[in-house]
Amino acid sequence: MSARSEQISAVRVTPVAMKDPPLLNSNGMHEPFALRAIIECETGDGLIGLGETYGELKHLARLRSAAEMLIGLDPFSLHELHRRVAVALGEQLAHAEVRTSHYSRAVEETFAAFEVACFDLQGKRIGRPVSDLLGGAVRAAVPYSAYLFYRYGEHPIAPGYGPDDWGEALDPEGIVAQESRMVERYGFSALKLKGGVFPPDEEIEAAIALAEAFSEHKVRIDPNAAWGVETSIRVAKALEGHLEYLEDPTPTIAGMAQVAAVAAMPLATNMCVVELEHVPPAVAANAVQIILSDHHFWGGLSGSRRLAGLCETFSIGLSMHSNSHLGISLAAMTHLAAATPNLNYACDTHTPWLQGEDVVKERLVFKNGAISVPTAPGLGVTLDRDALGELAEQYASCSVRRRDDTGYRQRFDPSYELKRPRW
Amino acid sequence: MSARSEQISAVRVTPVAMKDPPLLNSNGMHEPFALRAIIECETGDGLIGLGETYGELKHLARLRSAAEMLIGLDPFSLHELHRRVAVALGEQLAHAEVRTSHYSRAVEETFAAFEVACFDLQGKRIGRPVSDLLGGAVRAAVPYSAYLFYRYGEHPIAPGYGPDDWGEALDPEGIVAQESRMVERYGFSALKLKGGVFPPDEEIEAAIALAEAFSEHKVRIDPNAAWGVETSIRVAKALEGHLEYLEDPTPTIAGMAQVAAVAAMPLATNMCVVELEHVPPAVAANAVQIILSDHHFWGGLSGSRRLAGLCETFSIGLSMHSNSHLGISLAAMTHLAAATPNLNYACDTHTPWLQGEDVVKERLVFKNGAISVPTAPGLGVTLDRDALGELAEQYASCSVRRRDDTGYRQRFDPSYELKRPRW
Repeated sequence: MSARSEQISAVRVTPVAMKDPPLLNSNGMHEPFALRAIIECETGDGLIGLGETYGELKHLARLRSAAEMLIGLDPFSLHELHRRVAVALGEQLAHAEVRTSHYSRAVEETFAAFEVACFDLQGKRIGRPVSDLLGGAVRAAVPYSAYLFYRYGEHPIAPGYGPDDWGEALDPEGIVAQESRMVERYGFSALKLKGGVFPPDEEIEAAIALAEAFSEHKVRIDPNAAWGVETSIRVAKALEGHLEYLEDPTPTIAGMAQVAAVAAMPLATNMCVVELEHVPPAVAANAVQIILSDHHFWGGLSGSRRLAGLCETFSIGLSMHSNSHLGISLAAMTHLAAATPNLNYACDTHTPWLQGEDVVKERLVFKNGAISVPTAPGLGVTLDRDALGELAEQYASCSVRRRDDTGYRQRFDPSYELKRPRW
Repeated sequence: MSARSEQISAVRVTPVAMKDPPLLNSNGMHEPFALRAIIECETGDGLIGLGETYGELKHLARLRSAAEMLIGLDPFSLHELHRRVAVALGEQLAHAEVRTSHYSRAVEETFAAFEVACFDLQGKRIGRPVSDLLGGAVRAAVPYSAYLFYRYGEHPIAPGYGPDDWGEALDPEGIVAQESRMVERYGFSALKLKGGVFPPDEEIEAAIALAEAFSEHKVRIDPNAAWGVETSIRVAKALEGHLEYLEDPTPTIAGMAQVAAVAAMPLATNMCVVELEHVPPAVAANAVQIILSDHHFWGGLSGSRRLAGLCETFSIGLSMHSNSHLGISLAAMTHLAAATPNLNYACDTHTPWLQGEDVVKERLVFKNGAISVPTAPGLGVTLDRDALGELAEQYASCSVRRRDDTGYRQRFDPSYELKRPRW
C-alpha cells in the first residue's frame, strides 16, 4: 500500500501550440499551429509525472473532468485509473454516447495521457526507466523512419512566423531532396511518404524515385485511405518490389481485405483498426498484415502492450504511428518500442518537422536514425517550464482550437473538397 | 540500470514432494506424492525471489539448464529472461524439437517459474506487492472454487502415511458430502466436479445433486475430455440450467466447436487452448467461451496478462486453472487474479487437498471462499526452510519422478486403460 505522500495530490493540464509547417495530406493541410496538452501529475512529496496528448478542446474537456478524479490515486493503480477515467467520462458524456465506441475510444485516449504520467511517476519513485516497468528494453536504441510530406515552402496564409529551411516539395524531385536532407540530418534508413495528395500516378512516380534513389532504405507510402479498392490494387501492382508496406490505401476493413487479397506487399493500418473491437473482424477478414500502434489512442503503454500480444498471437506485424508531437511523447514512444520485442519496424515520428520548439529540457536526439533509450528514472525527460509557458502563451494567442486540415486548405483553395476515397 | 548488487547472483531449484490423496480423474488416480519445484533467485545484496513450478524430472532438467544462464540478470529484465530461457532450452533440446510447439511450451513453462521469482524480487526491491506491478489489485480478495474429486478414503497401495479425514466419495451422496465440508471449512460459493471417472449418467446425477443441494452456488463439471462429441452434447442437454460452465467435455478445438454450437452453457478449456498458437483456430471456430488461464504454462504473470488481453478482445471469458500446488503458487495466482479485471470467475485451487504441508511460513487462508490479496512486498510469502527441507527429503525418498496417474491406477486395477474419449 502506498503512503499518502506517494499519491497524486495535484494534476495540471496545459494546452500548448507549436509551429507546424504546411504539410499536405488527404484531408488538406497542416495549419500553422499544432495543438498538444501537457499533463503533470504531482505526488504529495513533490514528484512530477509527465504526459503528453492531443490538445483539441473536446479532448481538453475530457482530460479536465478526469483530472478532478485523480487526487489520491496511487500511480501504480493503473486499473483504478482506468476505472476513474471511465466514470468521469461517463458522467461527462450524454447517456446515448456512453454505449458507443466513441465512448470507449475517448476513455482509452484520456486514460493514456494520465497512464504515461503514472508510469513516469512509478519510474521516478523506484529509480528505474519506464522501459524497465514494461519488461525491460530489448534494444538500446529505437529506429525511427523519415516521415516525408508534400509541402509548400511556407504557409500561404500569414501565420505570424516565417518559412522553415526545408523548402517546398510538390513533385518526385522535391520529395527525393527532402529525403536526402532527412538522411543527412538524422540518419534514417526507413522512410514513409504521406500520400493521398496528388493523383496516384504522381505518387507512384515519387515512391519509385525514392526506392531507386535510396535502394538500401525501406520505403512506405500512406495515402490515408484516399484511394478506392481498384485504385489501391493498381498502385499496389505498380509498386510491387518497391515497398516495405503499403499503409491504409483504402477505407474500411472490408476494403483493405480486398486489396490485401491481391497485393504483393503487406498492408498496414492506423485507420481501420484503432480499437480492440476492430481486431476480431480484421483478423477474420485477413484485412491487415501490420498494425501501427499508438499509445495515445491504444490505451497507453499497457494498452499498447496488449495490442502487441494480439499481433504476436495472430502473426500480425507491429509498427508505430505518430501525430505531431513534442518530446514527452517521443520519450514515451521510445520506451514503449524498446520494451516491445515484436515491434520490428522503424517507428513513425513527426519530430523533424518541429520548428525548434519543445517542452523538455534535454532533447532526445537521433543518431543513425535511432534514439537511445533513456536510462534515467521514469521517462527520462524533464519539463522546461519557460518553454511550456511560451507554448502555452502561443496556444492562448493562436486561433486554432481543433485540428481542421480541410477548412484550412479551403481558405486559400475554395474549390478543395474532402473526399474519401478521392481516387 | 540496476546496480550489480541488485542482479541475480544465485539460483536454487529444489524439487519437493507433498502427500496427495487418491483423487480420481479421467487419466487414473493421483499418486501418493505430487511433485513441485521451488525456485529461489537471490540477488547480490541478499533479496530472495520465490517461484513454484512442476517438479517432474524433465522439467527439472529444463529449469537447471536455464538457471545457469540467469546469473547477472536484472530482475526487471523479463524480456531478457525470456530470451535466455529460450536459448538455454534451444541448446538442451535436440534440433528437431526446437521448431515445434513442444519447444515453445517448454520455454513458456520454464520462463514462468523464474518470471514469478523476478516479480517477487521486483516487489521486494521497491516495497510493493506483486499486484501493484500488474496494474494494481481491482479486488481486495480473490474468490476460489471448491474442487471436488471422486476419491477413495485412502491410497490402495500403502504410501507410508495414513488416510486423510475427507473419507471416500464415489457417488452423488459422497460428492455432496464433500462439497458440504468444502463449504463449511472454506466458504466457497463456486464448485467444480472433476468428472470423466464414472459413466456420464452417474456424473450427470452427481452434478444435478450438487446444483440442487447448493442452489445458490455456481456449478462446473470437468471430465478432462473423457467424452466424445455426441456424449458431450447429451450431457450438455441433461445439465442445461444447472451449470455455470462445462469444462473440456471433449478433445480438440474441432470437437469443442461442435459441442459449443449446440450447448446452452459456455464451454471452458484448459486443454485445447493452452498456447498462443491455439487461440486463432479456437477463435475462428468459436470453440470455447471461457479460457482457464494458468501462469505456470501461459508464460508467467506477463503471459497471463497477454492472455487476458486476448480474452477481452475476443469476448472470451477468463477463469483460472490449477494443478496440485503449494503456497507460493497460491500467492502468485492470487496477485494475478486480483490484478486482472476481466477474470470474473472463481479460480480453481487444489489447496484444500494438501495434507497440512507447505513451504511458506504464513499461509494464505480462505475466508468466505476467497483469499485476501497479500499487501506485503513481493508475493507476500516467505520460505519456511525447515519445511522445504522436509519436503525435499520426502522427494528424495519417494519413488515418484514423473506424474503417472494411469500407471498408478493400473497397479491395483490391471484392466484399467487410458482412453480419450472414453465414452
